Amino acid sequence: LFSQIDHFGFDESGTFQQRYLVADQHWKKDNGPILFYTGNEGDIEWFCNNTGFMWDVAEELNAMLVFAEHRYYGESLPFGNESFSDSKHLNYLTSEQALVDFAVLVEYLKATTAGAQHSPVIAIGGSYGGMLAAWFRMKYPHVVVGALAASAPIWQFGDLVPCGTFFSIVSNDFKKSGTGCSESIRNSWNAINHLSSTDAGLQWLSNTFHLCSPLKTLQDAAVLKNWLSETWVNLAMVNYPYKADFLQPLPAWPIQEVCKFLKDPSLSDKLLLQNVFQAVNLYYNYTGETPCLDVSQTATKSLGEMGWYYQACTEMVMPLCTDGVHDMFEPQKWDFDALSEECYSMWGVRPRLSWILSMYGGKNISSHSNIIFSNGGLDPWSAGGVTQNISNSLVAVVIPDGAHHLDLRSRNPLDPKSVQQARAMEICLMKEWIEKARHSH
Amino acid sequence: LFSQIDHFGFDESGTFQQRYLVADQHWKKDNGPILFYTGNEGDIEWFCNNTGFMWDVAEELNAMLVFAEHRYYGESLPFGNESFSDSKHLNYLTSEQALVDFAVLVEYLKATTAGAQHSPVIAIGGSYGGMLAAWFRMKYPHVVVGALAASAPIWQFGDLVPCGTFFSIVSNDFKKSGTGCSESIRNSWNAINHLSSTDAGLQWLSNTFHLCSPLKTLQDAAVLKNWLSETWVNLAMVNYPYKADFLQPLPAWPIQEVCKFLKDPSLSDKLLLQNVFQAVNLYYNYTGETPCLDVSQTATKSLGEMGWYYQACTEMVMPLCTDGVHDMFEPQKWDFDALSEECYSMWGVRPRLSWILSMYGGKNISSHSNIIFSNGGLDPWSAGGVTQNISNSLVAVVIPDGAHHLDLRSRNPLDPKSVQQARAMEICLMKEWIEKARHSH
Repeated sequence: LFSQIDHFGFDESGTFQQRYLVADQHWKKDNGPILFYTGNEGDIEWFCNNTGFMWDVAEELNAMLVFAEHRYYGESLPFGNESFSDSKHLNYLTSEQALVDFAVLVEYLKATTAGAQHSPVIAIGGSYGGMLAAWFRMKYPHVVVGALAASAPIWQFGDLVPCGTFFSIVSNDFKKSGTGCSESIRNSWNAINHLSSTDAGLQWLSNTFHLCSPLKTLQDAAVLKNWLSETWVNLAMVNYPYKADFLQPLPAWPIQEVCKFLKDPSLSDKLLLQNVFQAVNLYYNYTGETPCLDVSQTATKSLGEMGWYYQACTEMVMPLCTDGVHDMFEPQKWDFDALSEECYSMWGVRPRLSWILSMYGGKNISSHSNIIFSNGGLDPWSAGGVTQNISNSLVAVVIPDGAHHLDLRSRNPLDPKSVQQARAMEICLMKEWIEKARHSH
Repeated sequence: LFSQIDHFGFDESGTFQQRYLVADQHWKKDNGPILFYTGNEGDIEWFCNNTGFMWDVAEELNAMLVFAEHRYYGESLPFGNESFSDSKHLNYLTSEQALVDFAVLVEYLKATTAGAQHSPVIAIGGSYGGMLAAWFRMKYPHVVVGALAASAPIWQFGDLVPCGTFFSIVSNDFKKSGTGCSESIRNSWNAINHLSSTDAGLQWLSNTFHLCSPLKTLQDAAVLKNWLSETWVNLAMVNYPYKADFLQPLPAWPIQEVCKFLKDPSLSDKLLLQNVFQAVNLYYNYTGETPCLDVSQTATKSLGEMGWYYQACTEMVMPLCTDGVHDMFEPQKWDFDALSEECYSMWGVRPRLSWILSMYGGKNISSHSNIIFSNGGLDPWSAGGVTQNISNSLVAVVIPDGAHHLDLRSRNPLDPKSVQQARAMEICLMKEWIEKARHSH
């Protein structure tokens, strides 16, 4: 579909091609429902392939599936290769513009698909896509009858939640997954600090971690530490109960596997870090095919890192911090000014700290309706999620054994009971919305 | 208050000074309510002086009054004198940007005014300001607990209502106000057409209508006809039951006064038009101080005509048409393409016909709450208004004897019963919202 590059102004009148995927084999042509995936920061095919829940329920709900790609990701680039060239071209990369894209796409599909005119549409998304699903229902309730917002940290903004909870959840996941595990990681930072103070130590670290490009400076060592932190975070996000390939191919309960290497926190620096290497090597090289580890890459290339970096530098300012006590990380305060400087030098723009609160209401969302907020107890992003019911129709579903939007994944024989119950609840509520919409016509 | 010029993008990081007026003499400092006027297309002082209802109820509600000026009007010019210079500078003149200005201003006032932190805020507006009030509640329900949208034609867009109703209401006002009145006006168009076919006729028209600049061409005659049409429309809008000065100083029930000159539709062209002059002269020269009539001006200079012209050329596309049968005007079809061309040559932008529907939901607004839509039966804008209840909390108030947002004007001994009842209803609902908000804290 051709969508306006700028929905909110009239000076830029260009359009761009927005990609979307449709699966209608189970759709009941007489105004059967549409499940609409509000694409997030990546290639829509990848989300399509990692949202098995929608495929699993399509037949039961007689639903059409639509997966809409978020502007500036995948193939939906407003200015082609120029899209990321400067702040002028990036100016239209916002959640507000993306939501209008979705609204216009739904209207277009309903207007042009025979039998879809009165189809109730339900927004579904995970992570940032879950925030978009919730916000879509909040801002365009005439377009979607409800939303399933899975692992959507809509409160990880401003001062709505403590900045430290996120990393303490990550740490707890490791603490619970093996004796000595989180302690080993906590001790690893100083071990790296010691070693990175000499050239020989940097060399040793580069070799031990099988790095693709060797560490040369203290700053490189900081990059290594950041990369390790992100790796632990990612492991917490994909700590699924079965073998899976989301951010990386991994075994079942990957943190337990990783923790098998991290039983003794009292080892000497080098022995400890050799174990840490074994642990991260399991994350990056489970297939055994990775020749070396690249500290500039933590997840699948299907995610659009450039775009997300820009978004985190503008609207998506999510305060995070560590103290090394309630978590296993090096203490780091939340520093908005540093972020602002970094963003300005990187993109020529400055983040707006409270914008998302002004736009989407922060915690004052009780006047909205028909939104399911699901969160996994193992998922660090649940720190900023809605984990208690707000009203009869703003419902929180908590999945204690779930990692990042486990409920959106395909059914699996190894699924814990809690995610099965969550999905049943979600399907029940979606049926209610569909039924109600049918009666209003 | 300094507000972002562009709330929806990060490349333009400039700010501008937004004007707002505050009256807090009746405000109860312990979280008493705030009545917030969502300023429309004009100088905010003028709206402040013409919204007596808010002043009348301030004491009863212990309310603070805030009147917020709309960007690009009055003194709230984002780029000073350059604001209207081209489509680049005009790019931030949209209802969406204005609503964010309002949201940010409310948040600012609540954060900086002692005792206002939990003050419930009610949006109030008339006409375009009424649309803004309704949309404000729809899009920012976390900012305002409810809205009074007076004479807000939120459905005068797309194909939501017939394009002809507007002018047929105007015509009915004249029809009911004196025998021969609407017929006289209907016949006047051909009379003008006859006379404007010769230079002598144009001269005669210029003299007869006391025009400041004489008509020279057939196109000038079209301008005259347009100006007359707008005058009849304006008279319908301000057909108040008492002497008032809104768009112009006028007597009570001005259409009745005007119609006293228009009793005989069968007169010859010249006699008929001499009467038409008497009629419009009453509108433009009730004070007797107007030296000549200016066909480029129909209403008070407090309205920002430039800004509104741009808005009508972008978002605010309201289809209107006449057929000369159900109305007293020359037949004129609704012609979007012609408008689009005119807008492009005037401003370098093209209107987006269905944008407002996509943005604000058209007729599918039932999931919202706490909005009063009031409409006057005499007001042509009621054609696009909400005149029937949508739900328990989306309430229509109809004032059969009311013109354009009569209910927002000061109490007057000559007020018809219907407007007194309307105001009582409005106050009752506002009290309910305030009470409810108080209990939720």
